[in-house]
Amino acid sequence: MFNIPALDKLIHELSLLPGIGPKTAQRLVHHILRERQYSENLREALSAVEDSIKLCSSCFSYTDDSRGICHYCTTPKRRDDVICVVETPESVMQIEASGSYNGRFHVLHGAISPLHGLTPDKLKIKELSLRIDLLLEKAPQSKVEVILALDADLEGDTTMLYLAKLFAETPQVTVSRLAQGVPIGSHLDFVDHRTLGRALENRVRL
Amino acid sequence: MFNIPALDKLIHELSLLPGIGPKTAQRLVHHILRERQYSENLREALSAVEDSIKLCSSCFSYTDDSRGICHYCTTPKRRDDVICVVETPESVMQIEASGSYNGRFHVLHGAISPLHGLTPDKLKIKELSLRIDLLLEKAPQSKVEVILALDADLEGDTTMLYLAKLFAETPQVTVSRLAQGVPIGSHLDFVDHRTLGRALENRVRL
Repeated sequence: MFNIPALDKLIHELSLLPGIGPKTAQRLVHHILRERQYSENLREALSAVEDSIKLCSSCFSYTDDSRGICHYCTTPKRRDDVICVVETPESVMQIEASGSYNGRFHVLHGAISPLHGLTPDKLKIKELSLRIDLLLEKAPQSKVEVILALDADLEGDTTMLYLAKLFAETPQVTVSRLAQGVPIGSHLDFVDHRTLGRALENRVRL
Repeated sequence: MFNIPALDKLIHELSLLPGIGPKTAQRLVHHILRERQYSENLREALSAVEDSIKLCSSCFSYTDDSRGICHYCTTPKRRDDVICVVETPESVMQIEASGSYNGRFHVLHGAISPLHGLTPDKLKIKELSLRIDLLLEKAPQSKVEVILALDADLEGDTTMLYLAKLFAETPQVTVSRLAQGVPIGSHLDFVDHRTLGRALENRVRL
């Protein structure tokens, strides 16, 4: 676009980011060119992430711990017998921000979607089974709750059904999913019919 | 947001870019983490821009030329006696894309805006005068046309008035500005009243 190879390359790289088209990328490059120091800071931040961030070997969330295990998995302050299963590390942050959870996490890194080549073996489902097996081995009398906090779409639902079936024959494991209903603060007029139907079905006694 | 310093730093740096908030930055970081190679490519592209891009010493557009002068200024294929004055290097690309111009350029790097501390001495106005003086010194009989292609806002208008006055006493210099009117392909219903008024005033005989 600028007919200057270095600039065009940077525009190209930036426009590969999700939600950023060539026009926005051009605007970003303009900003980067005006503040030279910024470019250096951004490079350093990228480099630090490349060097230090890996997936936790237990829950597969992000961690910068040198032993490769995240603080959610190591802290003794969290309950061991509840595991919240999510699709992405971002969801871990969302659940944490709610302030209503103090168990462990497990990140599947996606949801079952055969059309996109995401079969159960591509997700961290085997690893989840293994974690639960280890927990039950250590304390055979204990109960484990698996909370499925996946997206409420087709892929999420499929994955939740799959996991519910997977643990159906392990009596020590109970599987639950997030409640579905009317979002707090919403106007009833703007809630879609299926959500409203679900909220009626799952109504809570006062 | 992630409670991991390296990730939070990267989110912070990305959210400094124009039009990118913390939520979008988080999504970008997610993309960067999933494709490690991408992060490296982006760093290299940034580094190449830092190393090679500078402002042309004549027109102040971007250039990667080692002599520090851009191809718009050096090519003999462009007319020397027309100078298109723009606010940003991006505008140079816009004018070029129109395919209707084959003169030289001059980038002011902003428009007069005393409220934002942008007084005439902060812009490349002195440099423009100098260029024109040199042109007229070389060929005293020649005429120079200065086309003002600044933004059609308050700052742009102020700057255009300032430049028109600046060259008012140099008879060899004529100053013009871009025509204002109805954009091609637009519906008359959606054109604002001031633009329509200007388009009527400046109507063209068929």
